[in-house]
Amino acid sequence: MNQNFSLFSLNASIPLAKKIAAKLNCSLGKLLSRQFSDGEIQINIEESVRGKNIYLVQATNFPVNNHLWELIIMIDALKRASAKTINIIIPYFGYARQDRKAAAREPITAKLVANMLVKAGTTRLLTLDLHTVQLQGFFDIPEDNLFSTPLFAEYYRSRNLYGENVVVISPKNSGISRARSLAKYLNSTIAIIDHEKNESKRQQGYIIGEVKNKKVIMVDDILNTGITFYAGSEVLSKAGAAEIYACATHGILANNAPDLMNLSPIKEICVTDSVTIPRKCQPKNLKIITCSKLLAEAIKRIHLKQSISPLFR
Amino acid sequence: MNQNFSLFSLNASIPLAKKIAAKLNCSLGKLLSRQFSDGEIQINIEESVRGKNIYLVQATNFPVNNHLWELIIMIDALKRASAKTINIIIPYFGYARQDRKAAAREPITAKLVANMLVKAGTTRLLTLDLHTVQLQGFFDIPEDNLFSTPLFAEYYRSRNLYGENVVVISPKNSGISRARSLAKYLNSTIAIIDHEKNESKRQQGYIIGEVKNKKVIMVDDILNTGITFYAGSEVLSKAGAAEIYACATHGILANNAPDLMNLSPIKEICVTDSVTIPRKCQPKNLKIITCSKLLAEAIKRIHLKQSISPLFR
Amino acid sequence: MNQNFSLFSLNASIPLAKKIAAKLNCSLGKLLSRQFSDGEIQINIEESVRGKNIYLVQATNFPVNNHLWELIIMIDALKRASAKTINIIIPYFGYARQDRKAAAREPITAKLVANMLVKAGTTRLLTLDLHTVQLQGFFDIPEDNLFSTPLFAEYYRSRNLYGENVVVISPKNSGISRARSLAKYLNSTIAIIDHEKNESKRQQGYIIGEVKNKKVIMVDDILNTGITFYAGSEVLSKAGAAEIYACATHGILANNAPDLMNLSPIKEICVTDSVTIPRKCQPKNLKIITCSKLLAEAIKRIHLKQSISPLFR
Amino acid sequence: MNQNFSLFSLNASIPLAKKIAAKLNCSLGKLLSRQFSDGEIQINIEESVRGKNIYLVQATNFPVNNHLWELIIMIDALKRASAKTINIIIPYFGYARQDRKAAAREPITAKLVANMLVKAGTTRLLTLDLHTVQLQGFFDIPEDNLFSTPLFAEYYRSRNLYGENVVVISPKNSGISRARSLAKYLNSTIAIIDHEKNESKRQQGYIIGEVKNKKVIMVDDILNTGITFYAGSEVLSKAGAAEIYACATHGILANNAPDLMNLSPIKEICVTDSVTIPRKCQPKNLKIITCSKLLAEAIKRIHLKQSISPLFR
Amino acid sequence: MNQNFSLFSLNASIPLAKKIAAKLNCSLGKLLSRQFSDGEIQINIEESVRGKNIYLVQATNFPVNNHLWELIIMIDALKRASAKTINIIIPYFGYARQDRKAAAREPITAKLVANMLVKAGTTRLLTLDLHTVQLQGFFDIPEDNLFSTPLFAEYYRSRNLYGENVVVISPKNSGISRARSLAKYLNSTIAIIDHEKNESKRQQGYIIGEVKNKKVIMVDDILNTGITFYAGSEVLSKAGAAEIYACATHGILANNAPDLMNLSPIKEICVTDSVTIPRKCQPKNLKIITCSKLLAEAIKRIHLKQSISPLFR
Amino acid sequence: MNQNFSLFSLNASIPLAKKIAAKLNCSLGKLLSRQFSDGEIQINIEESVRGKNIYLVQATNFPVNNHLWELIIMIDALKRASAKTINIIIPYFGYARQDRKAAAREPITAKLVANMLVKAGTTRLLTLDLHTVQLQGFFDIPEDNLFSTPLFAEYYRSRNLYGENVVVISPKNSGISRARSLAKYLNSTIAIIDHEKNESKRQQGYIIGEVKNKKVIMVDDILNTGITFYAGSEVLSKAGAAEIYACATHGILANNAPDLMNLSPIKEICVTDSVTIPRKCQPKNLKIITCSKLLAEAIKRIHLKQSISPLFR
Repeated sequence: MNQNFSLFSLNASIPLAKKIAAKLNCSLGKLLSRQFSDGEIQINIEESVRGKNIYLVQATNFPVNNHLWELIIMIDALKRASAKTINIIIPYFGYARQDRKAAAREPITAKLVANMLVKAGTTRLLTLDLHTVQLQGFFDIPEDNLFSTPLFAEYYRSRNLYGENVVVISPKNSGISRARSLAKYLNSTIAIIDHEKNESKRQQGYIIGEVKNKKVIMVDDILNTGITFYAGSEVLSKAGAAEIYACATHGILANNAPDLMNLSPIKEICVTDSVTIPRKCQPKNLKIITCSKLLAEAIKRIHLKQSISPLFR
Repeated sequence: MNQNFSLFSLNASIPLAKKIAAKLNCSLGKLLSRQFSDGEIQINIEESVRGKNIYLVQATNFPVNNHLWELIIMIDALKRASAKTINIIIPYFGYARQDRKAAAREPITAKLVANMLVKAGTTRLLTLDLHTVQLQGFFDIPEDNLFSTPLFAEYYRSRNLYGENVVVISPKNSGISRARSLAKYLNSTIAIIDHEKNESKRQQGYIIGEVKNKKVIMVDDILNTGITFYAGSEVLSKAGAAEIYACATHGILANNAPDLMNLSPIKEICVTDSVTIPRKCQPKNLKIITCSKLLAEAIKRIHLKQSISPLFR
Repeated sequence: MNQNFSLFSLNASIPLAKKIAAKLNCSLGKLLSRQFSDGEIQINIEESVRGKNIYLVQATNFPVNNHLWELIIMIDALKRASAKTINIIIPYFGYARQDRKAAAREPITAKLVANMLVKAGTTRLLTLDLHTVQLQGFFDIPEDNLFSTPLFAEYYRSRNLYGENVVVISPKNSGISRARSLAKYLNSTIAIIDHEKNESKRQQGYIIGEVKNKKVIMVDDILNTGITFYAGSEVLSKAGAAEIYACATHGILANNAPDLMNLSPIKEICVTDSVTIPRKCQPKNLKIITCSKLLAEAIKRIHLKQSISPLFR
Repeated sequence: MNQNFSLFSLNASIPLAKKIAAKLNCSLGKLLSRQFSDGEIQINIEESVRGKNIYLVQATNFPVNNHLWELIIMIDALKRASAKTINIIIPYFGYARQDRKAAAREPITAKLVANMLVKAGTTRLLTLDLHTVQLQGFFDIPEDNLFSTPLFAEYYRSRNLYGENVVVISPKNSGISRARSLAKYLNSTIAIIDHEKNESKRQQGYIIGEVKNKKVIMVDDILNTGITFYAGSEVLSKAGAAEIYACATHGILANNAPDLMNLSPIKEICVTDSVTIPRKCQPKNLKIITCSKLLAEAIKRIHLKQSISPLFR
Repeated sequence: MNQNFSLFSLNASIPLAKKIAAKLNCSLGKLLSRQFSDGEIQINIEESVRGKNIYLVQATNFPVNNHLWELIIMIDALKRASAKTINIIIPYFGYARQDRKAAAREPITAKLVANMLVKAGTTRLLTLDLHTVQLQGFFDIPEDNLFSTPLFAEYYRSRNLYGENVVVISPKNSGISRARSLAKYLNSTIAIIDHEKNESKRQQGYIIGEVKNKKVIMVDDILNTGITFYAGSEVLSKAGAAEIYACATHGILANNAPDLMNLSPIKEICVTDSVTIPRKCQPKNLKIITCSKLLAEAIKRIHLKQSISPLFR
Repeated sequence: MNQNFSLFSLNASIPLAKKIAAKLNCSLGKLLSRQFSDGEIQINIEESVRGKNIYLVQATNFPVNNHLWELIIMIDALKRASAKTINIIIPYFGYARQDRKAAAREPITAKLVANMLVKAGTTRLLTLDLHTVQLQGFFDIPEDNLFSTPLFAEYYRSRNLYGENVVVISPKNSGISRARSLAKYLNSTIAIIDHEKNESKRQQGYIIGEVKNKKVIMVDDILNTGITFYAGSEVLSKAGAAEIYACATHGILANNAPDLMNLSPIKEICVTDSVTIPRKCQPKNLKIITCSKLLAEAIKRIHLKQSISPLFR
């Protein structure tokens, strides 16, 4: 890029940021981010940022509260150190599911996070597959939300998984538009696993649509505890699906998700590298597709003031 | 209520506001709202509002821009006239569908509306069946979004339309959670009419799920041009549905929607009175269920500082 | 201008904006602004605005509420699409007369409009002959208010209407400073038509000053219903004025203003093209003077960061 | 009033505030406001204000910068000391004449003052005869601007100065609406002294209208250097006015205004006590009418949440 | 208290909050605050807070980032659930030492925390012994900072530790005003242990003042790693102090502070219960003095709108 | 510098600003700042500032309220005149000592000043030796606070005043960190003059530390009334100090400070030229060290977007 450009990463996203840097042919900015014995984070930016356009990468996965504070402390430091613009890249946006009052007296924590980011000094945001696209409206600063569906579609097409023999499955009734979108890329139909919201009854889901003897691909945005995919694969298996695949943008893989995935009849699970997945949390049937090229291209276009709309096609 | 309470209505919602007032045993506040020959709106509040808690009803249906300006001008007048709190009731929230950047360089007009309402001086908001629940997060003031599903459920149960013989239909794949919610109240299953987003191919929708010989109820939040219900009813009819019903919270009925509804095989269409529907726009199979009791109860609880969570059960 | 410059116009001002574009030797930016059957406006900006200085022209005359919403929706879209600066040109500023609480519990709608424009994302404003110059203080962003008096003065001098034989008339007592300003350019004296504020008694105005056998020019900022000019011309005619002229910056010409103007003893009425006047609303004695050169020059100076103070001389 | 009410005054307005307190049957709140040798002001509020509605009186006449800082420092102290509401009464609003950009690169200091008052914590404002009524729009908090015209009208009527024999004079062309308003109360006509804006040519003003053998009353909002009234009285005297009176809401009487007034042919000059006029600055023909009753009534109505609109009739 | 009052505590401060509740004769409000497997916190307030004055206790000690997010999420929930006022009690204010840019490109995290609390919806703050009193100025909402010095003074007087035989020690040169304040209560003199800021040279501190054969009391605000007290006690011991005591408001006791305290020649260490100290982190010479009575009294006075200034005497 | 750079000074700092301009090889921007007879300040900027980075110098010493209003009025004018950035240099920051609530119901005037500067339009701040460094946190805009200690250290070293024979004295216990900092530069030890806060007992201060036969340098940030230095020098003299020096960044020299300094046993008093000291206020033992080079270097680095951290070493 040029002199006015600096790419930084905080502790959650260093592997991904390094890949982005490689694609942008730059090195990561130098900073020191430490946590004291009382849990307080101290950040020292070790190179001048005065007058520069800063691009800062930080996913806010586990431990989300530390990652968020590290992020907004860094934003505060950049603002006070006279950065020209502060462009935040959040490949995985924690707390995104708390995006409405689902019951009386609930917070809307996703909005709170948005407010904190902006109040701290963020001037622009770049995200990947936000849990709901309406989160864009939680911001009044420019926000670009990229989609990983084309990455998965390209991969599945390369694996010959498309067309009439494939059915894209929404493993819960709220994710149907994601399934619809992937199905369009794959020239396939869709089906839904419907069940009560009650978590305990998830096993009793039933399929709306046809899956018998089909190769099915379950699609979700977040692979968290793995229960949704696990239960879904059981239902699909009973219903006579020929082969079962699953993909999710964000591979959180919390709790015993790796074990569940290993136990399930799912042949392969695809996720992006939006969050760093420790080796020990990777089930053996996991396939990781990088989103670094997509993010790097978006950063480049933003910095060069080129339209990023081609990335949405 | 009491001395510190005043209920006002602007031009879009006078019939509904009168029903609410009747249930609250109060009269509507006096105001004069005129439109000059150049289109400018002038408002005179004709009774003191100093130190009062004001509840102001205005749907923002067609002509939405006039109704919105009338609303925020009134809010400005109330604020400058020293109202203690300004509680806005928007039974139908216009521009709610513009809630995300669907394509490059699009506005998020629903957020813009939210910002305008708050900047003008709104201190609290009450809505009914927002197009997406995430719109709550567009606000940082207290916002309560009521649901009309129990009203429809109660009506259909009174008509014996519930249980195994009934299937609740989402006439497009994005409305599935509304269908799920009504189905739960009716002890029924659900089905979906899936189709391309492409408007021109809507006729080619296909059903995911079973409807043959069933009594089906299509459910949507907004009955606008009527095309969704019309096309859905055609598909359902071909698929052998026994009886076809439809319900939507907001009966906009734009363009030739009344004719389409009359032409369709739908036996009865239920809407609430969230927007005022002129007689000539009412198809003959229209049934209007009032939401005034629900709104009145919410207003009463807000004013008396009682929990409104019972209204969500 | 250059690559970082784009000039856009919304629906109210396309003829004027085209003239400005011609003078700036550029073309108008591409956008699509539609209104749906429910009155909602949808805007798509059809070229990249990322990092550009945008100049957007929109008068807010009738239908003022639509034009205002179209304007702030466009501003929202520009902001979210990463425009560098958003410079709004409002040749005619609707609601400008609601600039104070004239009676108890009135709104100050002009301030509300100002707040909405700024909240939506406007970074600079350019206006022409604001109804009261104090409106500048309704903004905390840079605001330049141009004056049309030199345009009218130049025209009247070219018509030999200046000096001792000419009296500039303020047709109501609140517009005296406008009359004073034009009189100075024309080396003439002034007179005032005083009357009760009561609209019904307007016919009974009386002249303070001398007009007998003089060529008189009535001056106002807004030609709206035409009653002020019509009643004024009657009074002046009775008082023995030799020839009667009238000029106003903004030719709204609402209601039956065209007829009134045709019926009146006014020889010629001058207005600028700050608002688009449909052919059928133009009285036959109307002379339109373009303000496009003035606006174009101001835009150029703003963009090139040159002082615009020469335009005030 | 009651326990939740406290009336305070800062140094500029103690005599007026004491009169207001007497009419409200309360005593002034205790505070210590000192100025150190380096000019810094220190304020100690010497009684609890926690949870109270505070009414604070301070005119911002000479020395305006000290009076303004004293005012906003007090507001800050009240806010931090947990006052419930902070209602500011500014009988004379300094810097009000800097209400627009009169030339390139000028500040709009009146708006700056408004912003400072609000940012410091003011929740409501009460003023008397603002220089231009549009200043109300510089605020987004409730603002009530009282008029002194009825006070003057009542006085002149008691002195038999009304009807056909009286002409109300605007001594400069920008003050005509004030003259109009007083004339209406007195059933009189008006006349204007027109002159170039150029200060040096003020003597050359000429009268538009008839004053010969009439009792004339010049009316202005601010009696500052006295030049306007002095020059006006000279012109009126030459034109054959029978008796010359003058009134202004705010008696600033700066520089040698007292001498000028003594030298002029003006029989009596009326002002209110909106600013404290030191004995030595009072010309011998000065008559002071108190505005304390009007302000006290407004404060009482605000505090008791009664409409103050009767005060505008 | 009364119906409009509710006291809540989050996870960091339940023992202290229970003591406060006991003194206020009320019970703690019901809420559920859970942390999911991905670290996200979810809060459900289990009783109505509509229209109530809420008092919420949460220290922000280790793990500070979790405690802070729990706090602002709760504030967001309270705001959206229509609490009337949100009064936050932070007995220990984490990140308080990051209150300035100590080096280039550092954040001012204490200000960031202040901004987050206010942006989330806090309407008032109550703290105890802020690290620097200037932190009050980081807020524009009412903030009361209580002092624990009287609590310690009372205790030491009860132990006969006061007067000429006692010297109050500031164990670092920046804490001298705290030593001064306690010395005044105890009628004692002060001394300072001065040393380089360089942490590694702390052992080499030297005493400014006289301590030989005196009973000395080191005073600090935060007992964190214990190194300051440990190194100070070594220096004092060598200098011939008769008995060594130490007190600090906030007993963080991080790392191996408990061991260091046990190893030191300090006879007794006093702290308050502003943070919850797990049993295993309590050195055997620890004495805990409760601040609950002080906080309870302040809360009571705030709620009853009584002056809290008596608590500062 | 270049075309986009302009350096202005207001009335308090013209001598210092001229020195800065000389070092930056530029001339001061043209402006007219007058005060009217009623104390109101009027500012006209007499050259275009459109699109420029403005650097504006103004100390806020006596008369502080005038200087502050002149400053914020200028900021308002710059903002409205379309300056690109508004960088304020405040060599002496008035009201800085009112930085906390020292007693009940006190304002925090330093924060109020900060808020006013930012609200008016300041985009960046440069200060010198703020009274407390925490004042940086009163701002959310970039703030750089320079230190004068190196200037004094360099001077004293040039005078051979360093090393073992020198003791740096904090003449009051709150200024110890300043003494510590200078001592480090001079390789000296420190001592403190401790006394009650009670002003009347200042004479009774006692020394903590050793000064007998030493050359002592008292250090403070502000030389205001001179009482602190005068009383300190008396105490030091009695304690047998060999030679007494004093230095302070800001030479306010209010009241009879010049006389007190002349009367005292202080050999030389050093101050910077952060405030303009009139000849008659300069005691004969005064030495003025310019801070203009330091400020000029900082301005240059800010404008050229170079790191200013070297200035802190």
